[in-house]
Amino acid sequence: MSGQKLQTAVLGATGYAGFELARLLLKHPKVATPLFLARAGEAAGKQLEEFYPELGPQANYPLEPFDWELLKQRAVKVLFLATPHELSRELVPQALQEGIRVVDLSGAWRLKAEANRAVYGFTDADAALAAKLDAEAVYGLPELHREEIAGARLVANPGCYATSVIVPLAPLVKAGLVDRKRGVICDCKSGVSGAGKKPTQKTHFVEVADNFSAYSVFGHRHTGEILEQAGLDDDELTFTPHLLPIPRGILSTIYVSLARPAAAAEIERVLRGAYGAEGFVRIYGNKHLPQVSYSLHTNFCDVGFELARDGRRLTIVSCLDNLMKGAAGQALQNMNVMLGWSEKEGLA
Amino acid sequence: MSGQKLQTAVLGATGYAGFELARLLLKHPKVATPLFLARAGEAAGKQLEEFYPELGPQANYPLEPFDWELLKQRAVKVLFLATPHELSRELVPQALQEGIRVVDLSGAWRLKAEANRAVYGFTDADAALAAKLDAEAVYGLPELHREEIAGARLVANPGCYATSVIVPLAPLVKAGLVDRKRGVICDCKSGVSGAGKKPTQKTHFVEVADNFSAYSVFGHRHTGEILEQAGLDDDELTFTPHLLPIPRGILSTIYVSLARPAAAAEIERVLRGAYGAEGFVRIYGNKHLPQVSYSLHTNFCDVGFELARDGRRLTIVSCLDNLMKGAAGQALQNMNVMLGWSEKEGLA
Amino acid sequence: MSGQKLQTAVLGATGYAGFELARLLLKHPKVATPLFLARAGEAAGKQLEEFYPELGPQANYPLEPFDWELLKQRAVKVLFLATPHELSRELVPQALQEGIRVVDLSGAWRLKAEANRAVYGFTDADAALAAKLDAEAVYGLPELHREEIAGARLVANPGCYATSVIVPLAPLVKAGLVDRKRGVICDCKSGVSGAGKKPTQKTHFVEVADNFSAYSVFGHRHTGEILEQAGLDDDELTFTPHLLPIPRGILSTIYVSLARPAAAAEIERVLRGAYGAEGFVRIYGNKHLPQVSYSLHTNFCDVGFELARDGRRLTIVSCLDNLMKGAAGQALQNMNVMLGWSEKEGLA
Amino acid sequence: MSGQKLQTAVLGATGYAGFELARLLLKHPKVATPLFLARAGEAAGKQLEEFYPELGPQANYPLEPFDWELLKQRAVKVLFLATPHELSRELVPQALQEGIRVVDLSGAWRLKAEANRAVYGFTDADAALAAKLDAEAVYGLPELHREEIAGARLVANPGCYATSVIVPLAPLVKAGLVDRKRGVICDCKSGVSGAGKKPTQKTHFVEVADNFSAYSVFGHRHTGEILEQAGLDDDELTFTPHLLPIPRGILSTIYVSLARPAAAAEIERVLRGAYGAEGFVRIYGNKHLPQVSYSLHTNFCDVGFELARDGRRLTIVSCLDNLMKGAAGQALQNMNVMLGWSEKEGLA
Repeated sequence: MSGQKLQTAVLGATGYAGFELARLLLKHPKVATPLFLARAGEAAGKQLEEFYPELGPQANYPLEPFDWELLKQRAVKVLFLATPHELSRELVPQALQEGIRVVDLSGAWRLKAEANRAVYGFTDADAALAAKLDAEAVYGLPELHREEIAGARLVANPGCYATSVIVPLAPLVKAGLVDRKRGVICDCKSGVSGAGKKPTQKTHFVEVADNFSAYSVFGHRHTGEILEQAGLDDDELTFTPHLLPIPRGILSTIYVSLARPAAAAEIERVLRGAYGAEGFVRIYGNKHLPQVSYSLHTNFCDVGFELARDGRRLTIVSCLDNLMKGAAGQALQNMNVMLGWSEKEGLA
Repeated sequence: MSGQKLQTAVLGATGYAGFELARLLLKHPKVATPLFLARAGEAAGKQLEEFYPELGPQANYPLEPFDWELLKQRAVKVLFLATPHELSRELVPQALQEGIRVVDLSGAWRLKAEANRAVYGFTDADAALAAKLDAEAVYGLPELHREEIAGARLVANPGCYATSVIVPLAPLVKAGLVDRKRGVICDCKSGVSGAGKKPTQKTHFVEVADNFSAYSVFGHRHTGEILEQAGLDDDELTFTPHLLPIPRGILSTIYVSLARPAAAAEIERVLRGAYGAEGFVRIYGNKHLPQVSYSLHTNFCDVGFELARDGRRLTIVSCLDNLMKGAAGQALQNMNVMLGWSEKEGLA
Repeated sequence: MSGQKLQTAVLGATGYAGFELARLLLKHPKVATPLFLARAGEAAGKQLEEFYPELGPQANYPLEPFDWELLKQRAVKVLFLATPHELSRELVPQALQEGIRVVDLSGAWRLKAEANRAVYGFTDADAALAAKLDAEAVYGLPELHREEIAGARLVANPGCYATSVIVPLAPLVKAGLVDRKRGVICDCKSGVSGAGKKPTQKTHFVEVADNFSAYSVFGHRHTGEILEQAGLDDDELTFTPHLLPIPRGILSTIYVSLARPAAAAEIERVLRGAYGAEGFVRIYGNKHLPQVSYSLHTNFCDVGFELARDGRRLTIVSCLDNLMKGAAGQALQNMNVMLGWSEKEGLA
Repeated sequence: MSGQKLQTAVLGATGYAGFELARLLLKHPKVATPLFLARAGEAAGKQLEEFYPELGPQANYPLEPFDWELLKQRAVKVLFLATPHELSRELVPQALQEGIRVVDLSGAWRLKAEANRAVYGFTDADAALAAKLDAEAVYGLPELHREEIAGARLVANPGCYATSVIVPLAPLVKAGLVDRKRGVICDCKSGVSGAGKKPTQKTHFVEVADNFSAYSVFGHRHTGEILEQAGLDDDELTFTPHLLPIPRGILSTIYVSLARPAAAAEIERVLRGAYGAEGFVRIYGNKHLPQVSYSLHTNFCDVGFELARDGRRLTIVSCLDNLMKGAAGQALQNMNVMLGWSEKEGLA
């Protein structure tokens, strides 16, 4: 039975996004139990349930040491990388050479413009090959790049903040409704799982609870993705991330000056035109704004907005679960697209 | 002993701001135990400790029915109104007639422009007198209006959101640094105590925890205060309040386009010029942004900022405790100013 | 298609347990879209998505006024009552008369001993019929009463606290391991959704956050269920509920004096003997204690324990999601048993 | 001016309890600005405000490298150790030799019985001296040992859990009301700051939020303190700590079997007899149970109880702030006692 199912592997299932992905894959009707991998010296040799005892006392998910031979033996067709971007940068060339398709959850392959990639400071062993793969990699937002994803060898799964901003912004920019010269402001707020599982002072419960803070002002790595995918120039975007005292979820408040006075109905029409047929974007329009809780544990990106009486100032509210549509859920959606399956498979 | 201390009264000590004020007054070295008042049919006749058992099993703070005779008998000099704005609108004329100075924590007397007051829909019994008092009322932000507060009969204690925005914004607008035409965006986030003690669906724990939401987009009552006090025109301000899953605290992220490129040092100079000698404004500058937790349970308004490399886009972060500098602490500070006392008395 | 699916109805889907049940039923592969019902003067005539906008902007789930004719027209086979116990007490006799099987989530029909029912103060219109139904009603804990549930017309879905205590305690008492004379102490902690959706001072975010409290000490209504189902006498049980500052989840710490010194392996053997074949009870044994988070959004009851070196003092930790195994999940499990389906259907 | 004030030093002010103590000392009217000390290789050479920016942008509190000469130069009279117990064990002998009185916040010197100390595994350089100091050290619960504290050179500040249990339990045991043979059960719940400032997986926000768990069942280090101070034998006490998703605060639910049936009034009489004149113990009696929030940011230990109708089963609820009465507040109270000052000085 399971032999007919898709063979996948996950490197980094001990992290928050990686484990969310593990859970989704374990429930996916067309996917075999994934091969869980870990790098030597870390979790390799342990069991996934040591990190996530909620898997239950009977669970048995060994974390195998990462090894290309093992991937071949198991006939892995899709490799998910929930790893630091340096590691993704290192592993992807060989994976493709081995004929394994990759969905990379890191920021390693998302950026087309070299200037935007600079912030990551990649040191590729084979720069020419890396440049070729940079060009080949497909930005894994199915709502924008479905066709390319379907045929892609390498899908760069989008950043969580970036997804929440690009989804509502891209069609408005494309429709010429945005007065880009006046600047777009993205005031984004994320739950703590976005900061990763490794304990730091910043993620200590006592520092986060009863608190709220801005960080990486004018310096967050998702900026480049938003610029490239929404179609803005560098100084047209102001993006401020904030840390919410909640485990998961993102709400982005996006401030747009319209190029000409518009009615709410026109804004809604553009958004529905772009996403009306989509299964994972919900347009709440301007009657009721989405909240973080609405999309928790789902793969939805929820969008609502309000327009000022002057018809020029548009305030958009966009919400998603940073571990789902912002990471693992979108990765699974991408896999579904790559395999030609229904996008909702394993996600409904 | 207590006869030489200031006699005060608080109407509305059962609410969150009113109780914070009660606590401050009970510890103020120059203030006698306040007269706690309640309107008939509500809390009148009960004890304050029934609502706040943290006062201790030995507490004895009766909530007297509101009565002008009682205020006179007790020789009350300052009356604090922690009441709905309609009630403040009703009571203030007589209080002043009785020779009692008032610090009103509601929005009843904060606005100078009739257009801005419209949102409250006041129905004054004596419209002419109300108009006179509207003109006489002093906006109780001591950092901006210290002298008028000192001599005022009626001090309109500012709104919590408004304080967090006006403090950093007013001196920048005054210095001509703000390109008002491009618009100022205030993305503000508040803890739940700002929504009041009355239980509603919106403040139910299950609705707020793990959640985050925007509300009153383009329609919050504090908008008028910000316009008047910061010196902006109606369509120059976009103000979006959000509800944080924390009991108290506000963080406002304020986006300003500068009228000309500036250096961070100049911004800091303007802010320090305005507040360097102030006891309750802390300028964190652009080295470290303040967080909500820094000012909790204090009367500080903390201000920090970051400037984009283009020197044109300024992102300000401003924090305060909505029950302290945003309500009761500021009310006490106003009382100190009115009495000619050190502003820190009872607040340090 | 849907005509072949089971027709169900839910009265009270606007409450937390009722909505959790609605969500489960909507995803159940063998159940048609349920008929959502509301009593006149409340939610009747509104839409479920007004109360739960997370259903999405396209949702369309009308709340029909409760009406026996409508139940018959729709050929409803199973009626779920997520209602106050007085209302369940009132409606159940007629439902059974109409040939509709009932799963009642309230405390109305859980108790066999009249003395235990006294705490509810029922005033039945037809006392004789009520007494007959009290005797007929099956306590809906499938792990203990599977066979009776399968044939039952009226299933009394257990209380959330009660489930968390009865599951680990019942087999130990039955095995004669518990020194009942020394008393069993159940120190139970629940998230706030257990207190219901109606906003009260007690469930206000500001009262719950950063707080923790005991309540209903020696007076909680679930006491009777525990006594009857675990097999204890009145003065052998001390049960203390506490309110946790989390939306959902229960952890019960249960203190048992053993009738004779035992080894951990024997305790584990008894628990595994009782539940080893169960799909919704997970025995963590004494190697790792379950935590609240492990069973959130699942129908599991997780059980772990530690034994003192004297082999006499046993401390059990039991966790479940109060809206799932503690309410809606268990209700669905009961429905599956009643229909002869796999118990995991719609719950895995 | 400050020369007449008490010279103190704090080693470990970067931890949560140490910083709470720093804040209290900085506001204490009879204490000079403390000397803040750090061990080489850690925080030494940095500023306290780098760890706690809420001190404000103008703060200037250097963390001096720990050095006995410096302590002498500054004529330090009282040294507070907010350090790991091994370090306290190492430093105390010399401190006393230098004539410096010590309040130690660790568990190093709290235990009289060697068997109870075994859990710490101390390896003292001078075992004989250590044993002498073990005997000399005074358990710093002023309500029980006020006179010895007044003259002590070495005060062992009690554990947070231990304080919450000993305060209500000790007078009941002493009064002979407790049926010790039936066992006393302490089900204790603490906020996360009790786990220290060092980030670990256990204190990561995502692991704690929406969660609740028991830990160190039958194995927590505070057990020995409770046994010794409350007057119980080893197998008479079952103590279970739990981790609450709140930053600070403890609630202990204590289950006692009475030696003979008693009335609530008698229990209250015993508690009031013990603490009626105390400034930091509040007896709520059996009318209203204390909650965690009541004593937050105060030095109170709040006690309430309920008695079963059988008059034999007593359930006590005891609350305190683990950083105040459970650590820094109690340390300051001890200092006040040692100096012969009012105990409320700096704590009211």
